[in-house]
Amino acid sequence: MDAFADDARSLAGGTEGAAALRSLTGVVLDALEGGAARRGGPLPPGGPGAVAERVRAVLGAPGGGVGGAGAVLPELGTGAVEALSSLVGLAAEGAADPADPLCAAHLHCPPLAVAAAADLSASVLNPSMDSWDQAPAASELEAWTCRALAGLVYGEGSGGDAGADALVTTGGTESNQLGVLLARELYGRDVRVVYGANAHHSVPRAAWLLGLPEPVRVPAPRGVLGPAELREALGSLDAGRPGVPVLVVATAGTTDTGAIDPLDELADVVGGFGPRSARGGGGGARLHVDAAYGGMLLFSRGRRARLAGLERADSVTLDLHKLGWQPVAAGLFVVPDRRALGPLDHRADYLNADDDTAAGLPDLLGRSLRTSRRPDIFKVAVTLRALGRAGLGALVEQTCEVASRLAELVEAEPRLELFGPPALSTVLFRPVGADAGAVAAVRRRLLVEGRAVLGRAAVSRGAAVSRGGGGQGTGGRDELWLKATLLNPHAEDSDLRALLKLVLEALPSSAGCRPERPTPAPPLPASRSGSPPALTESASDTTPVTASSAARSPRS
Amino acid sequence: MDAFADDARSLAGGTEGAAALRSLTGVVLDALEGGAARRGGPLPPGGPGAVAERVRAVLGAPGGGVGGAGAVLPELGTGAVEALSSLVGLAAEGAADPADPLCAAHLHCPPLAVAAAADLSASVLNPSMDSWDQAPAASELEAWTCRALAGLVYGEGSGGDAGADALVTTGGTESNQLGVLLARELYGRDVRVVYGANAHHSVPRAAWLLGLPEPVRVPAPRGVLGPAELREALGSLDAGRPGVPVLVVATAGTTDTGAIDPLDELADVVGGFGPRSARGGGGGARLHVDAAYGGMLLFSRGRRARLAGLERADSVTLDLHKLGWQPVAAGLFVVPDRRALGPLDHRADYLNADDDTAAGLPDLLGRSLRTSRRPDIFKVAVTLRALGRAGLGALVEQTCEVASRLAELVEAEPRLELFGPPALSTVLFRPVGADAGAVAAVRRRLLVEGRAVLGRAAVSRGAAVSRGGGGQGTGGRDELWLKATLLNPHAEDSDLRALLKLVLEALPSSAGCRPERPTPAPPLPASRSGSPPALTESASDTTPVTASSAARSPRS
Repeated sequence: MDAFADDARSLAGGTEGAAALRSLTGVVLDALEGGAARRGGPLPPGGPGAVAERVRAVLGAPGGGVGGAGAVLPELGTGAVEALSSLVGLAAEGAADPADPLCAAHLHCPPLAVAAAADLSASVLNPSMDSWDQAPAASELEAWTCRALAGLVYGEGSGGDAGADALVTTGGTESNQLGVLLARELYGRDVRVVYGANAHHSVPRAAWLLGLPEPVRVPAPRGVLGPAELREALGSLDAGRPGVPVLVVATAGTTDTGAIDPLDELADVVGGFGPRSARGGGGGARLHVDAAYGGMLLFSRGRRARLAGLERADSVTLDLHKLGWQPVAAGLFVVPDRRALGPLDHRADYLNADDDTAAGLPDLLGRSLRTSRRPDIFKVAVTLRALGRAGLGALVEQTCEVASRLAELVEAEPRLELFGPPALSTVLFRPVGADAGAVAAVRRRLLVEGRAVLGRAAVSRGAAVSRGGGGQGTGGRDELWLKATLLNPHAEDSDLRALLKLVLEALPSSAGCRPERPTPAPPLPASRSGSPPALTESASDTTPVTASSAARSPRS
Repeated sequence: MDAFADDARSLAGGTEGAAALRSLTGVVLDALEGGAARRGGPLPPGGPGAVAERVRAVLGAPGGGVGGAGAVLPELGTGAVEALSSLVGLAAEGAADPADPLCAAHLHCPPLAVAAAADLSASVLNPSMDSWDQAPAASELEAWTCRALAGLVYGEGSGGDAGADALVTTGGTESNQLGVLLARELYGRDVRVVYGANAHHSVPRAAWLLGLPEPVRVPAPRGVLGPAELREALGSLDAGRPGVPVLVVATAGTTDTGAIDPLDELADVVGGFGPRSARGGGGGARLHVDAAYGGMLLFSRGRRARLAGLERADSVTLDLHKLGWQPVAAGLFVVPDRRALGPLDHRADYLNADDDTAAGLPDLLGRSLRTSRRPDIFKVAVTLRALGRAGLGALVEQTCEVASRLAELVEAEPRLELFGPPALSTVLFRPVGADAGAVAAVRRRLLVEGRAVLGRAAVSRGAAVSRGGGGQGTGGRDELWLKATLLNPHAEDSDLRALLKLVLEALPSSAGCRPERPTPAPPLPASRSGSPPALTESASDTTPVTASSAARSPRS
């Protein structure tokens, strides 16, 4: 082995690991700081081609190293300090950083420093949550934390052997999958998943994954799953096949608009549908609520009433890596009675032999579909303790207020159109009169120039006009909007104004809505103004976002 | 909000995050150091009851806080420094630390410091791997690293559009699931999974999860899946239902013994079975190899020949969080041709709209069944670069040599019996004449006293006598062995001797094999000798491992 690789052989744990980590985490923090400064904005300019080129420059020419993939795996190592400096610097320089208020496309939150620091200890101690003898304290801490969060959904006093509990997941997708899986195990493989058109794509994907019949997609022209529409869908289903068991999936905080389904009314519909099985058709009906985004309102005394009815769900998805400021992953699957988790029980003699369990060693294997499992709940536990209910509630409220403020600014700007008042922390808007091509081009232009990260949502306008329980909506077809998913509680008025200004400036001149008096471009950081990206984007849909397609990339 | 929670509101990212993290990671490293010193051994003494009691003492009395679960979620936060100090300290004090050479039960590795430090930057930058605009550089780095590792399996020169590729998974369980899923999508839902009795429990569990027929378990009395047994199983299956498509799952490095199936011969059998479909029965046969443990031999020039035939598999599971010294999760699912991953393609307009993809924004959604996804490959990329092929190969060899050395020491000790020469880095042994109850009791006693973490394996003795391709084995019934899964490359001779000494000392006096001249107990750290655990363990199977069952725990 070469001498340079020697420092790379130190272990993180034990009594000596901390000493090695003191210098290495210093290298990491320096590289993060340097990379962020070089980036100088919410994401690197130049689009995918420029980023690919920069990665290639650091990883070495293709053809060298193992697997024809450059110097990813050199024969001789470069040592821990070089590897951390170069690759952490590369990742930071090329990040879309959600801590920058102009990075607001997705449910992709800026983690709290306290959570990221706590997560370091998970990597160092490396408990694996599949057996007690790999994670004595970590598994006990997980049990406590899961119960506390489940109590937040299902109310206090739900302790005891049959009390509410939660499993830790990789996120909403896995939690939704578990909701579908429990229904399958309870009702059998002919259970039909019934979901709103506003639900997350992982819901029908779970049905596919688990081998269930094609799920039923209920139209949601108003952006929420309406009780009338649900009742109609369940009725048709039952008429076609009397007694068919169903799992209804509702959403508290959609990805597109942040809308919250009327949970209490939906629970009534589901509750009324289940007992038809008494008429002899088998049947049964369960309600799963995907509250990955909206569930965090539970921390806010002022806003938690928005989730009324959540506690009537048979299972709930929560994600603390959305409105909870945790690094991914911090998903939860919550049930009102831990006995419902029985179908996940599983035996592997080396992990939970009967005699070990009988002798008092906790059996952890039924707490996940995974086997080896990182203690993702640990950073959550530290965050809950550090901020308390009040501290997290304040951050939730502050973030929702940032969204309301952005909506006000959009409304005050005649060249911009607001989709509707934000339900949570997502604001949809667009330049007045911009068609889908222009909206998509604005988003891509901001991305490629490294100026802002905005998302997109194709939704029906009916979803906006009906807030407050109004009529049927337009029922018109989906239109494309710019989406700002605001998750940075510290974003300021000046950030929001800058974001809107960038949008107006990014309008392609061919679009019908070019502002008459374009405001001057803001001063750009050097890395942005130095070499303007070779951008040929127009309002047309298929222009490449990058001229560097010649850059060889493993993706090509 | 209370003043104490103020420091907890800092974000990890941006240009200012590093400053906040400098002090907070210092707090974490201090707490890790302090916790490890208080623990003073491979795991905390006292068993589950004592650990639960300690957690309860830190988290506060039940009944307070939210959800009836103590002070997990206090109304007011304690601030970042207090929360990190107390909970990281608690986790470290209560860890089973794989960096301690006496912690060797499971495929639960001590992470390298360089990998844990790299993982910190993943938590800080928080790229989510489901869309380019959440992870510009991180997704490009992932693409390069996955290709390089896939090249390690399927050989160099496999570049180009149809080349080998890998998906990042949460571990072997998910990778095995993906292998089964691709077979289902290729062959349909009547595909039969055929696996050796020596395979990981996640293989039949994947069939259950994905809604497939009951899989076929092939006896493996010699500890490996034999070609003759496989041929026979496939023949019976085909006779019962001509043309039935199959997925054969083989193992390179079993959890119980580290045994490697004869991959080349199994590939011959599978290859010979597939073409029968030409006889008109439909059919088809694929081979998936679970090389979660053994796959890391690929890094060793001297030992990679042990995996001959791996490159003939249709898909391969690798786990760098086993013999690759990464924190969990670092799983990979490897295929020889990335076009095989097509069934995972998936569309969600907000993440990979057609016009964005056409315009050159990379489509990442088909690279996982998850949506939000942590950049788990990042620490792997840093480790590959820091150590190089040679550095990792040397660690693999060193670790296998540690296992060989332990096997020699067992053989040299007349009071101990060796199962057989280690195939990888797992050594099975037991006190001469110890029955299953005595073996299980020794393991639990060492656990509860906080002296050593050893695993257990119930395997047939035939698995040992047949190494080298010998006969049919005894075919006798499974017997219980102590299992040392050695993953610490730096373990020394003195550590291994200490481990064996502890085993001999832990033998219950009622067992038939008590050594005549018990060696004196080694000096114990204060925390161990101070308060002897209230241990009532005997050779009987059902004695509780802890007397503290009165301690209230959320698990109770």
